[in-house]
Parts: sequence; C-alpha cells; structure tokens
Amino acid sequence: MKKMGFEAAVLCGKKEIRLETRALEDPGEDEVQVVPKAIGICGSDLHYYAHGANGLFVVKEPLILGHESAGYVTAVGPGVTNFKIGDRVALEAGTPCSTCKMCRMGRYNLCDGMQFRSSAKRFPHCDGYLCERVNQHVDFTHKIPDSISYEEGALLEPLSVALHAIRRSQPSLTPGSRILIMGSGTVGLLVAAMARINGASDITIADISQRRLEFAQTTEWVTRTVLVPLKRAKYGEDPELVYAKDTASELVKAAKMDQETYAGFDVTYECTGVDTSIQTSIFATRPGGKLVMVGMGKPIATLPIASAMTREIDLVGVFRYCNTYPEAIRMVGSGGVPGLGKLVTQRYRLEDAREAFEVAERGQDEEGRPGCLGEQGTA
Amino acid sequence: MKKMGFEAAVLCGKKEIRLETRALEDPGEDEVQVVPKAIGICGSDLHYYAHGANGLFVVKEPLILGHESAGYVTAVGPGVTNFKIGDRVALEAGTPCSTCKMCRMGRYNLCDGMQFRSSAKRFPHCDGYLCERVNQHVDFTHKIPDSISYEEGALLEPLSVALHAIRRSQPSLTPGSRILIMGSGTVGLLVAAMARINGASDITIADISQRRLEFAQTTEWVTRTVLVPLKRAKYGEDPELVYAKDTASELVKAAKMDQETYAGFDVTYECTGVDTSIQTSIFATRPGGKLVMVGMGKPIATLPIASAMTREIDLVGVFRYCNTYPEAIRMVGSGGVPGLGKLVTQRYRLEDAREAFEVAERGQDEEGRPGCLGEQGTA
Amino acid sequence: MKKMGFEAAVLCGKKEIRLETRALEDPGEDEVQVVPKAIGICGSDLHYYAHGANGLFVVKEPLILGHESAGYVTAVGPGVTNFKIGDRVALEAGTPCSTCKMCRMGRYNLCDGMQFRSSAKRFPHCDGYLCERVNQHVDFTHKIPDSISYEEGALLEPLSVALHAIRRSQPSLTPGSRILIMGSGTVGLLVAAMARINGASDITIADISQRRLEFAQTTEWVTRTVLVPLKRAKYGEDPELVYAKDTASELVKAAKMDQETYAGFDVTYECTGVDTSIQTSIFATRPGGKLVMVGMGKPIATLPIASAMTREIDLVGVFRYCNTYPEAIRMVGSGGVPGLGKLVTQRYRLEDAREAFEVAERGQDEEGRPGCLGEQGTA
Amino acid sequence: MKKMGFEAAVLCGKKEIRLETRALEDPGEDEVQVVPKAIGICGSDLHYYAHGANGLFVVKEPLILGHESAGYVTAVGPGVTNFKIGDRVALEAGTPCSTCKMCRMGRYNLCDGMQFRSSAKRFPHCDGYLCERVNQHVDFTHKIPDSISYEEGALLEPLSVALHAIRRSQPSLTPGSRILIMGSGTVGLLVAAMARINGASDITIADISQRRLEFAQTTEWVTRTVLVPLKRAKYGEDPELVYAKDTASELVKAAKMDQETYAGFDVTYECTGVDTSIQTSIFATRPGGKLVMVGMGKPIATLPIASAMTREIDLVGVFRYCNTYPEAIRMVGSGGVPGLGKLVTQRYRLEDAREAFEVAERGQDEEGRPGCLGEQGTA
Ligand SMILES: NC(=O)c1ccc[n+]([C@@H]2O[C@H](COP(=O)([O-])OP(=O)(O)OC[C@H]3O[C@@H](n4cnc5c(N)ncnc54)[C@H](O)[C@@H]3O)[C@@H](O)[C@H]2O)c1
Ligand SMILES: NC(=O)c1ccc[n+]([C@@H]2O[C@H](COP(=O)([O-])OP(=O)(O)OC[C@H]3O[C@@H](n4cnc5c(N)ncnc54)[C@H](O)[C@@H]3O)[C@@H](O)[C@H]2O)c1
Ligand SMILES: NC(=O)c1ccc[n+]([C@@H]2O[C@H](COP(=O)([O-])OP(=O)(O)OC[C@H]3O[C@@H](n4cnc5c(N)ncnc54)[C@H](O)[C@@H]3O)[C@@H](O)[C@H]2O)c1
Ligand SMILES: NC(=O)c1ccc[n+]([C@@H]2O[C@H](COP(=O)([O-])OP(=O)(O)OC[C@H]3O[C@@H](n4cnc5c(N)ncnc54)[C@H](O)[C@@H]3O)[C@@H](O)[C@H]2O)c1
Ligand SMILES: [Zn+2]
Ligand SMILES: [Zn+2]
Ligand SMILES: [Zn+2]
Ligand SMILES: [Zn+2]
Repeated sequence: MKKMGFEAAVLCGKKEIRLETRALEDPGEDEVQVVPKAIGICGSDLHYYAHGANGLFVVKEPLILGHESAGYVTAVGPGVTNFKIGDRVALEAGTPCSTCKMCRMGRYNLCDGMQFRSSAKRFPHCDGYLCERVNQHVDFTHKIPDSISYEEGALLEPLSVALHAIRRSQPSLTPGSRILIMGSGTVGLLVAAMARINGASDITIADISQRRLEFAQTTEWVTRTVLVPLKRAKYGEDPELVYAKDTASELVKAAKMDQETYAGFDVTYECTGVDTSIQTSIFATRPGGKLVMVGMGKPIATLPIASAMTREIDLVGVFRYCNTYPEAIRMVGSGGVPGLGKLVTQRYRLEDAREAFEVAERGQDEEGRPGCLGEQGTA
Repeated sequence: MKKMGFEAAVLCGKKEIRLETRALEDPGEDEVQVVPKAIGICGSDLHYYAHGANGLFVVKEPLILGHESAGYVTAVGPGVTNFKIGDRVALEAGTPCSTCKMCRMGRYNLCDGMQFRSSAKRFPHCDGYLCERVNQHVDFTHKIPDSISYEEGALLEPLSVALHAIRRSQPSLTPGSRILIMGSGTVGLLVAAMARINGASDITIADISQRRLEFAQTTEWVTRTVLVPLKRAKYGEDPELVYAKDTASELVKAAKMDQETYAGFDVTYECTGVDTSIQTSIFATRPGGKLVMVGMGKPIATLPIASAMTREIDLVGVFRYCNTYPEAIRMVGSGGVPGLGKLVTQRYRLEDAREAFEVAERGQDEEGRPGCLGEQGTA
Repeated sequence: MKKMGFEAAVLCGKKEIRLETRALEDPGEDEVQVVPKAIGICGSDLHYYAHGANGLFVVKEPLILGHESAGYVTAVGPGVTNFKIGDRVALEAGTPCSTCKMCRMGRYNLCDGMQFRSSAKRFPHCDGYLCERVNQHVDFTHKIPDSISYEEGALLEPLSVALHAIRRSQPSLTPGSRILIMGSGTVGLLVAAMARINGASDITIADISQRRLEFAQTTEWVTRTVLVPLKRAKYGEDPELVYAKDTASELVKAAKMDQETYAGFDVTYECTGVDTSIQTSIFATRPGGKLVMVGMGKPIATLPIASAMTREIDLVGVFRYCNTYPEAIRMVGSGGVPGLGKLVTQRYRLEDAREAFEVAERGQDEEGRPGCLGEQGTA
Repeated sequence: MKKMGFEAAVLCGKKEIRLETRALEDPGEDEVQVVPKAIGICGSDLHYYAHGANGLFVVKEPLILGHESAGYVTAVGPGVTNFKIGDRVALEAGTPCSTCKMCRMGRYNLCDGMQFRSSAKRFPHCDGYLCERVNQHVDFTHKIPDSISYEEGALLEPLSVALHAIRRSQPSLTPGSRILIMGSGTVGLLVAAMARINGASDITIADISQRRLEFAQTTEWVTRTVLVPLKRAKYGEDPELVYAKDTASELVKAAKMDQETYAGFDVTYECTGVDTSIQTSIFATRPGGKLVMVGMGKPIATLPIASAMTREIDLVGVFRYCNTYPEAIRMVGSGGVPGLGKLVTQRYRLEDAREAFEVAERGQDEEGRPGCLGEQGTA
C-alpha cells in the first residue's frame, strides 16, 4: 500500500490539540479518499477536548476529532464505480458491520460493531475528520449536489439525528401536531426544523438560556420560545417534582392548551439530557402522546414514571441515526431547510483548530451561543 | 319542538335544483344550529346533479346537496356548553354512531351507521348544507379561528381526505421522500399540499389535462408536472399493460430516478380512480413503497398485482377521513397552507345554486378547470 | 323508574365490608340488568379494603367493590334489541364517554370521562359488581358462549389487561420471541399466557416469591422461573443500580443468552410496579427491544434511562385495556387458554364477602399465593 | 483453491434430471462447507423441472435445484470462528448484498443483488442444494439444536415465508383474530400453523381440493375447512365477479359471521395465486382488515378494487422472507410447531432425485397431495 502524508488536528491530551503529519494508505477496495472541506465541532468533541473523555469513553491514544463533515473525492479504490475524483460528498460518520442482527433488521445505528468517527468508545480509537484527507467506505459516502454547500453538508450529520428523532416519533407526529422541544441547542433547533418540515403546526421551544431562545427566534422554525427557570434540585429537595410539574404547566399554558381536556403536547422532544427536563417533558405531554429522548445526560434519572405509564405516553430513545442521508440530502438540496446555514456561527482554518476549540468551549459555557457547530477547516 | 322555516337548494331530479322552504326543528340536546356561510360543491354533488345518482346510490327523494361547509352558530341545544351563538365553525360532514366496533377502534370513517351529508346511500337520505340553516351534532362541529375564512373552512373537508391519505401512508412518507400524485384535481392538489407540509422533497403530479397541470404550477406544492397521454385501452387491446408501463417509465424518468437501483416513487397517491392510472401507479412505485388509493372509479379493475406483490408495495385505500379536523384547523389557522384559497374559483349566492351547478358541471367536463369546489355565499 | 331491592357487599370503611340492601332502578334505554355470578377480587379491591384507599384515590362514601365479573341478563332496557333475558354475559368494567378525542382515536381506556367500576377516582364513586344485581350499558356487555364458565368470564377482565399489554408490544413481539416477565402474580401469569398464545417461544418469569414461581410452574405458560433476590435499596445505598444490573445478568444467563452479541430479551413485561424491578427490566432488554410497563407502583422511580435511550429500548405503558373483549372471548371460548380456571383459588358466597377479603388479604401478604382473584358465587 | 468432487442432481433440460459430478472449491473466507442432509422440493422447483422455466425465468444452463435444506458442516473458511465441523445447520436460501438501500432498511428480501438458490433469475444461475456438498455464507447459515431434525430444518424455509406473512399482517392479527386462508398447500398450511401460534382463534382454510382439506384436518392448525367450487370464468363471463362474491359469502357464513355488522375475516392470507381466489379474499375480509398476498399467479388480475379501497382493506404482498431464521428455529426447536414433520410425505435418496420429481409432479397435478415438500436426500 502506498502511503501519503497529511496534516491532522490531533487531540493529544486534555485541552491539547496539536497539528501533526500522518501517513495515509491508498483507499481500499470499496473506499474513496476525501478532502474534508468543512468539519463541524459538536458537543461530544468538546467533551473530549475539555475532559479528555466523553462520559464513560476515555481518550487513551491521540485522537482526531470531528464527525460532521463534507468534502470532495480525490481518489477512488479499485472496486469503486459510482464515485469519481472531484465528486462533492457528505460523509456519514459511522460504518456499521452490515451483517449483524441489528444491521439486518434495518437498525444499523445500534450495530455493536459500529465504527464511529472521533470516538474513544473502542480501542484503537476511530479517528475523525479534522484533517486534510481521509479514506471512507463508499457505502457511507453520499454525493451532494451543488445546491448544498460544504458547510451544509457537514450539518447533515446533526440533521440526521433530528430526522431520526422525527421518524422515531411516528405515527404520533402528524400534520397539525403541537410539539414541545426542550433545549434550544443545535440539536433542539434542528429537531424544530425537521418537525416544522414534517407538518407540526405549533412548535414550542424551551431553554434556560435567553440567548439561546433569542437565536431560536431568528429561525423560522419555532412558534414560540419559553424561558424556563434553571433549578436542579439536589436529591431529596423536591421529592414530589414540583419544579417539573410547575414548569410543565407553564409550558402547556404558554401553548394555550391549558383549558383542554387532554392538555399537553402531542410529542415532546427532550434535547438537553438534564433530568429535570425529562421530568418536565413527561408532565407536559398529553395522554397517548410520545416523548422522544434525544438529549444525553447522566445515566440514571429520577422520573415520574407512573405519569407516563397511566397515560400511555411512550418513551422512545434516539441513538444517532440510520438511513437518513439520502432523504436529508434531498431536503436540503431542494431548498427545503432554509436558514440551515445560520447554525454555523464561526469559521476557522484547520491550522487554527486549537483556537476554534477554545472559542467553542467558551461559547458553550459562558456566552450561551449555539457555537458548538461552527468549526470549518479548509485545506 | 319549535320549528322555523329556512330556504334550501334541493335536488328534485336529474339536473333539477329548486329553491324550497323547509321547516327546521330547534337544535336537539347535543346540537348547535348553524348558518352555512360557504358551501363547496364537490365531484359527488355533481354526480348526483348530473345523473340523479352517484355510483350505486340513486336519489329517491328530494335531497339537499353540499357536504363541505363552514358557518356560524345561531342557536345551541339545551345540553351544549362549549359553543355559543356567533361562534365560527367548520362542519364535519359525517356523524358516526360512536359505539360500534369501527368507532371504538378509532376508525369511525368506516362506521356502518355513519350519517354522511348530501348522500343518498341510506334512506331517508341525509341532507347536505346547501341551505340557510342546519342542526349539527356538537361533537362534529369545530370552532375555527378568525384566521380561517369561511371558504377555507369549507375546504377543510377535502383537506381532511388529503390529510387522511397522508396518515395512511405512514411510515413510508418521511421528510425527503419523493412522491407521485396521479390526478391534478382538487383532491390531488390537496394531497400535494399535505405531502409538501409533511416533508416530501420532490412531488411529481401527473394529469391528462394540460390546464389542470397549469393550475397546479400556480401553487407552490408541486416540484414538477407531467402530462400523461389519455388512453383507456378497451379490454383485450393492451393485455400486457404496455401503456401503464411506458407511462410509469416516463414518470420515473421525469423525476430523474431512472438510473437508480430501486427506481420508483416512495409513495404514490392515486387521485383519479381510473384503472390505467392505478396500473401506472403500481409500476411507478419503488420496491417496499406504498400506493395510496384515493380516487374512486369503476368497482373492478385490471391490475398488475404481481408487480405490487413481489416488490411488497402495499396498497392502502382512503375512505373519507377521521380525526382530522383539529389538526387541519391548526394547520390552516396557523398559516401553514398558503394558497389554499386559490382552490375556490367561483362564488355564487344560494339562490343561484342552479347556475353554480351548471357552470361547475361544464367546468369539469369541458374547460378542465378545478372548478369542482365552488364557493357558495348566502345572504 | 321502578326500583327493586338488591343485596350488596359494601365497603363502609377500612377493612369494613357490610351486606346492605340497596334499591336498583329499571335498566335504562341502552342498559341490561345483570346478575353477577362470579366476581373476582383483584389487587386494587384489596387496597381499598385494606387502606380505605388505592394510591391517591380515597374512599369518601360507601363503595361496592369488584370489577371483574360475569353473569346473566335478567332484564333489558327499552332500546335494547341484541340481548334477551337469560343471556350469559361478561361485564366490561369501564364505560367511556364515547365521543372525546381519546375515544374517537380508538384509545378509550384513556378517556377522561371513563366510569370505571369499584373505583373512588371520581365522586360520586362508581360502584362495582359485588352485589346481586347491576345495570350495565349494552355496549360494554359481552355475550359469552357456554364454553366459558362464569369464573372464566370474570377472568376476562385481567386477561384484557394482558391482551392489551401484548398489543402494546407490537411489532416487537413476534413468533419465536424470547420474553421476560417480572412478577408472577395474576397479571404476570396472564401476560405469560397471552405471550405464549402470541407465539413467544421462550418465556422467563421472575419473582421474589418461590411460592408464586411454583404456582407458575403448574401452568404451561412459562419456559422457566427465576427466583430473584428481594432487595429494595434505600436511596443512596445503591447509586449505580448494581442490584438491578446483577439481577438482569442472572436473568439473561438463565435464558442462555449471555453469549450473544445483543444479549437481552426481545420484550420485557414489568408486572410488579416495584422500582428495582423496572430497573432490572431495562438492563435485561436487548437493544431495539421493548419494555412494557404493566405494574403500578410508586409514582416516581429512579431509572437507568441512558441504558434505555442509547439502546433505543421503547418504554410503553399499559393502562387497563380497550377493544379486548371480543377477542378475549373468542380465545377463551375456543379453548385457546387452557388452565385459565386455575387462577381462581378460592370461592365464596356473596354473604361471605368479608371473609373472602380477609383471606385474600392474608393470601397476598403471607402465603404468597396468587389469591388475588377470588371467585364469588351468588345464590 | 483446492477443489473436491461432489455429486449433484442437475436439471439439464425440461424433465431431465441427471446425476453429475462437479468440483467444489474450499470454502471462502466467510463460508462454511455443508453436506445437505434433507432437501425439500417446492413448487418453483417443480416448475423448473416440468417447464424448464418458472414464470419468466428460463433455465439457460444446467441448474441444481432445491432451496429448502439443512445439513451439517464439514469444513469452515479461514475467517470463520462461530462454526465448527459437525455443527448441524439450516441453510437460508438467499444471500443479499447487505449494503444496498433495501438491505440497510431491513428488507433484504427485496435486495436487487440477492443470490437465491435454485433460481434462473440471474445468469449465471444460482445453484441449489440438491447435491452432496455446498459452500454457504456464514451469515446465512443457522445452527439448529438436536431437537430439530434435518427434515424440519429444511422446512424452516417455507416456514419462513409463513412467518414473514404473519409479520406482514401486523398489527391486524391479534390474539383472538378470525382469519381465512385460501389454499391448503404447503404454504397455506404453514401460514395456518404460524397464525395459530400467533393467537388466531378461528382459522378457516379453503381449497378446491377435498384431499388437500382432508390433509389439513389431520393437522391441529385449522378450525374448519371449506371446499370451494373450482370455476375460473373466462373473461367476460362473470363481469360482476358473482362467483367470488358468492364464495366469500359462503366462507363468511361457514365461519358463523354472517349476522355481524362488519362481517368478514380480520385477516385473509391468499395462498393460491389464482385470480378468482384473490377476488374472493377481498370480498371475504372485513372493513379495516388486511389481505396478505402470498400466492403467486398470473402477473395481471381483475380485482374488485373499490371493495378493498372503500372499506380500507390493506393489500400487502409477501416476497420470500427476511430475519426469520432465528425465530423460526426457536419456535420449532422448543416444540412450538407440533406436527410440522407431517408435511414431509415422501423420502428419497439423492440418486433417486429424478423419481422424486416425477412423483412429486404427479402428486401435485393428479392426486392433490401436499407432496411438494418431500425429497430428502442423504449422502
Ligand atoms: N441522541 C443522539 O444521538 C444525540 C446526538 C447528538 C447530541 N445528542 C445530545 O443532545 C443534547 C443536545 O445537544 P446540543 O448539541 O444541542 O447541545 P447544546 O448544549 O448546544 O444544547 C443544549 C441546550 O439545552 C439547554 N438546557 C440545559 N438545561 C436545560 C433545562 N433544564 N431546561 C431547558 N433547557 C436546558 C441549554 O441551555 C442548551 O441551550 C445533548 O445532551 C447531546 O449529548 C444526542
Ligand atoms: N377516497 C375518498 O374518500 C374520496 C373523497 C373525495 C374524492 N375522491 C375521489 O378522488 C378522485 C379525485 O377527486 P377530484 O375532486 O380531485 O376530481 P377531479 O375530477 O377534479 O380530478 C381528477 C383529475 O384526474 C385527471 N385524470 C383523469 N384520468 C386520468 C389519467 N388516466 N391519468 C392522470 N390523470 C387523470 C383529470 O384530468 C382530473 O384533473 C375522484 O375519483 C373522487 O371520486 C375520493
Ligand atoms: N396497568 C394496568 O392497567 C394494571 C391492571 C391491573 C394490575 N396492574 C398492576 O400490575 C401489578 C401486578 O398485579 P397482580 O394482580 O399480578 O399483583 P400481585 O401482587 O398478585 O403480583 C405481583 C407479583 O410481583 C412480585 N414481586 C414483587 N416485587 C418484585 C420484585 N422486586 N421482583 C420480582 N417480582 C416481584 C410479587 O411477589 C408478586 O408475585 C400490580 O402493580 C398492579 O397494580 C396494572
Ligand atoms: N410469496 C412467496 O414468497 C411465496 C413463496 C412460496 C410459494 N409461494 C406461492 O404460494 C402459493 C402456494 O404455494 P404451495 O407450495 O402451497 O402450492 P400448492 O400448489 O401446494 O398449494 C396451492 C393450493 O391452492 C389450491 N387452490 C388452487 N386454486 C384454488 C382456488 N381457486 N381456491 C382455493 N384453493 C385453490 C390448490 O388446490 C392447492 O391445494 C403458490 O402460488 C406459490 O407460488 C409464494
Ligand atoms: Zn452490525
Ligand atoms: Zn360506528
Ligand atoms: Zn371519552
Ligand atoms: Zn441488498
């Protein structure tokens, strides 16, 4: 195998991003070689950067971050017939095994053999796209038309999470539905965009940060924003979950549904991962409705489970996505998601990756801007 | 029971509409009395008018037509608490029995005891809304906000058919889907509108009438229009269904899908009822896709059933609608269906109902305009 | 309205059952009058008896208990055509409003206007069947063939809960599935019976009581029984939910699935309501599987929600049942649930109701027998 | 690659089966080498044998028939870790591409790249199992326990079709359902077995052959058998489909449902492929029910489509199966399908394959025995 050198922004330790030169093999039988032109930085990248770990997954060797990306093809493997040099492509971050039980059942996002970019879950780690050049399996490389910019191409990844969330809410989400989204971050906003596209008539988005809500108002995706108080009761302080009940009531009232017999949202998308927010989500959903859990937080939560159970509110989780790219590309490519580009707030060159992370981290913690998506490196 | 007089446009025989004065009882326990302000004329009304029958249902006594309507409340029955005089309302045309097996299973559109307005299916017939005043069961009366005009309120009825068609296509219709609609009449166009709202990225609408397609282009609901040749083979003339196969190929090509492995639309909505169109619909749908049959035509059709079966294309029918009004009102009320009003092409006063029918009939047969929905204003 | 006297076993206070004579009106327009021949006592009846309350619902006036019953018709209301005196019938315990949003959507078990027998949820309370004679709405009265005994007819009520649980697990439960049931009480056993009938190949039932499991073994519904240790950690004692994880591992191992890639049950039915059991249920279910929550316990529980979410295990609740009687009658009537009668362990006369409750209460607390269903024969 | 010789029963022309010696390579990276111990002959094999073609697929080169098989492992490829020599296995007849759109969506039975055994659909043809030794991809090789005989292992293939049909009928098939099966051949009977296992309480099976029905009665899968008259109207003879309507009425009456409001079967499984039978199936299904089309017949049929559409009876096709083997093995292995072995009516040695085909062919055409499954070759 011939090898060529390429530059990569490598996470070598907590808060330590270095530009290194690596060697890349020629693309394999079913691979294409791609130059990433835009790479988004998302929450999990920031976790790796800030803590040298993301939840349970600890970085044990230098890791290239970034799993939201689009670029162009520079070389094709010997068995590749449907791609050619120069093709503009979006890169699907995970490559499943394709043959296990989950893969065969059409739920490849749950594949145990999944190789997911920029993740320390497995060892050796699976490198991400924050670099000059990568080899990618053709089956998870998707051509994008000229009407999709590279930045939008990178955004197809979090958009896929949102689209998967929408699908997981079927058949509860119908044109005319009234929905609630907890959390106005990138994910919450993209869920709003997808729910809007999928017919929701009335979209309430809630956050603890006024700035985040102000940003939400600049999109055309939400009907109303509601600021909810930040209060994470220490255990024992609020055994009856009064905070969540009250917050749910406020949300139902804000959406003018409090006089109805079956007060509550048809579908609620929890996009914060915070336990008080999950509690609120249950109380705020109507009987027979659905709670889609997108946010990832602490592994264990205290939940008003009887309220969900006796009202037959289904709780369904969202883990990444599967079979979303063709549809996401069609949506964005046909102009169906206007305003998508707004989610990119800052742009950097690859060699400035370190700075990008520093700013993004501050952005999240201090300024409350949806800055988690925004790093765009060019060669 | 007190009775008051009211004027009605009554179908007394083939092509014979007369203005008559009828007596109306006070609204019953759970009824409201409503003044219809807008009444649409749809295809089945025209059939009754033109032939004195609609398919198998023959008019055996004078019948008031019209089942698409909205108006305002003028009186409420003794048991009514949630409506008051002056409320603006849309009228759901069918009142099911509420207790039979179908009703209890949530499919009240299939209720055997259904009383459907302006229909000669049962005897005595069930009168429609083309009159000055009707009594209506509160459970099937729906308040509309000021943002919905009476005309739009009347259009909620055919819109309900379209919404029901969309729901019946779940989970096959997903944001990003590519769909085909056969027939660019009122129903086809409303299905397009609903599919657009429900995320379809690419909507092909086909018709044999260029005028109908031109009208379709004035909406923002369709991606492209395709004129298909009119040819209804006499039996034996086209045993291999070559016409339908060719037409399907043209449609797939027009939608730029012919190079794909699983060429064909994700979901096809058949909105003509014509057998060659159903055949085309099957050939034009992709493996694992869905064919939603909305059009009503001859009871028996020759179909390429093996093509549907071996590719596991589900064939699902649409019979009217159920549980659609709250969502339809929310969609239209929130501005979610811009351009809806366009579907009303002419307006008449109740006393001119005869003329309205004459024009609508000609409009359908000769001029090819989507005139089947005529707005009828009363004093 | 004519009235006639009848005897009833009335709960007049905590642990105070009295035989009283009440007056009964003639059956209304759509009612039949029924003599209950068998009345089961279930957990909620015992709660009312033992505590004068069932969870949040406190008995505020004398209440006739019993909502599992079958009997024969002694009189029919003026509008009734499909029942005649002497008909053997099973009584569906809840009468929904039939017209609200939930009723129209086919989920009448969630109806806010539901009148449910032997429940103190609403005031005035809704009396149960522990009496000589009741009036019952025809729409919720179901004829039973001679092949169904009155006792089995009474058991159709808890069987309905189980059938509803089975339906709620669709499409995850398929012939060949491997399932877990937590709790070997009446409900757990009936879920086992229904799952067996619905094709589950491998049914593991777990309980903390060896006696309950021994009883389970006498049925032909379960593949294996597993005794799980009773340990309800006080809060803070087991923050990592080690107990639940270990118990889940044991269960997976007992079912010989521990060597598999996606170890875990396809569907788990939680039939205890205990929080440690819900935790165990989540850990024991496979990725993409389903957890059906039937048991009712404390309103708030500490749950390993991330484990459910990241493996996309859906959590669906079961609240009573809807549209189950016709199918349940067909199943039992055709001999499809052999061994059902075994669930009735004791029989009493109406006048001995007090004793029945005493024994049933002891039975539950001390002897661990599934005595919660007691047969009550009347003269 | 080393090669070894093996004997095969090869179809060399119409009605011409010859025993030939072929050369077999060592098993590939992910393959096992298997000795088929039992091979079923099914309808499509008989078609190839009798006509040198199966529908559109014409035999263009010598073809080894047989796609229902089980045997034991004699060698494993270099990459195989989960099989060892001596393992008893059932062979899944189709190997899909694993990466196309259909494969990724979990519907690999619709894969365009499917390699299906004993089929002339593609060229070069894909050989079947009627031979001494085959190489098979591990992902489609399934271990069977000792409780499953080789004959039963071969029957897992048609059983898979039946299981897939059952899954395709979800959620319409529920415990207590009343179903109809048209056609009492191997497929119809296996559908009956699966429906029985999946809770159907009342199973009517219809055939034109009394012998087939007599055989059905020897199983415990059906509630009743109904002989329907054989009459295939020439076109034009029965434009109103009176035959089908009458036959449907008889079937509904036989199942004692004719007095009901929504008379008709909950789910009908069409297992003949004959057009009059499909017509009958539509008329015999209840509103809101489902027609599962398993039989394969002429590509084009005349159908009472309005009857399906206006009653919202879904028509869903069944094309082979996917993801069925693990569940089918569990069902049969746990004794869940007693009587399965009965479906094997004759046994032959591989060298007598020619005779087997002759008898099977006569059996089908003249004697009406379910002899289509029966060829069992031993090494
Ligand atoms: N399920 C998946 O596959 C998947 C994929 C990507 C991200 N995620 C998760 O989705 C969540 C959102 O991701 P993001 O990138 O948008 O993160 P983000 O940090 O940009 O946004 C989260 C938002 O939630 C708000 N918030 C915090 N606590 C709240 C509370 N109690 N009530 C209301 N709002 C509150 C924050 O102010 C912030 O605006 C994260 O938990 C992330 O881990 C899940
Ligand atoms: N399922 C239901 O509950 C329901 C309710 C309302 C209407 N419908 C049916 O829906 C259909 C459409 O209703 P509409 O009001 O829009 O009628 P319409 O007459 O206005 O529209 C039908 C359109 O189909 C076109 N057409 C005819 N033959 C065609 C062919 N072979 N290929 C392509 N296009 C063809 C016509 O030119 C016309 O534009 C009718 O059959 C009607 O009976 C069904
Ligand atoms: N969802 C509904 O509509 C509905 C209807 C009826 C009953 N229920 C609920 O279903 C549950 C079961 O009802 P039942 O009548 O069978 O009650 P039951 O008391 O007879 O049975 C419960 C069983 O659970 C066992 N158990 C307790 N803790 C356990 C643990 N930690 N692990 C394993 N097993 C444990 C007990 O030993 C007992 O055998 C109750 O919670 C009841 O309230 C719900
Ligand atoms: N969908 C699939 O993937 C799949 C797989 C295997 C077989 N099949 C098809 O399933 C069908 C049944 O297969 P089989 O192996 O059981 O065939 P078979 O020939 O053994 O059985 C067919 C039965 O249908 C009966 N029959 C014929 N005409 C009838 C009529 N008008 N009414 C009632 N009964 C009638 C026959 O007497 C016979 O008993 C065939 O069409 C076959 O091609 C489909
Ligand atoms: Zn996999
Ligand atoms: Zn009804
Ligand atoms: Zn209700
Ligand atoms: Zn494939």
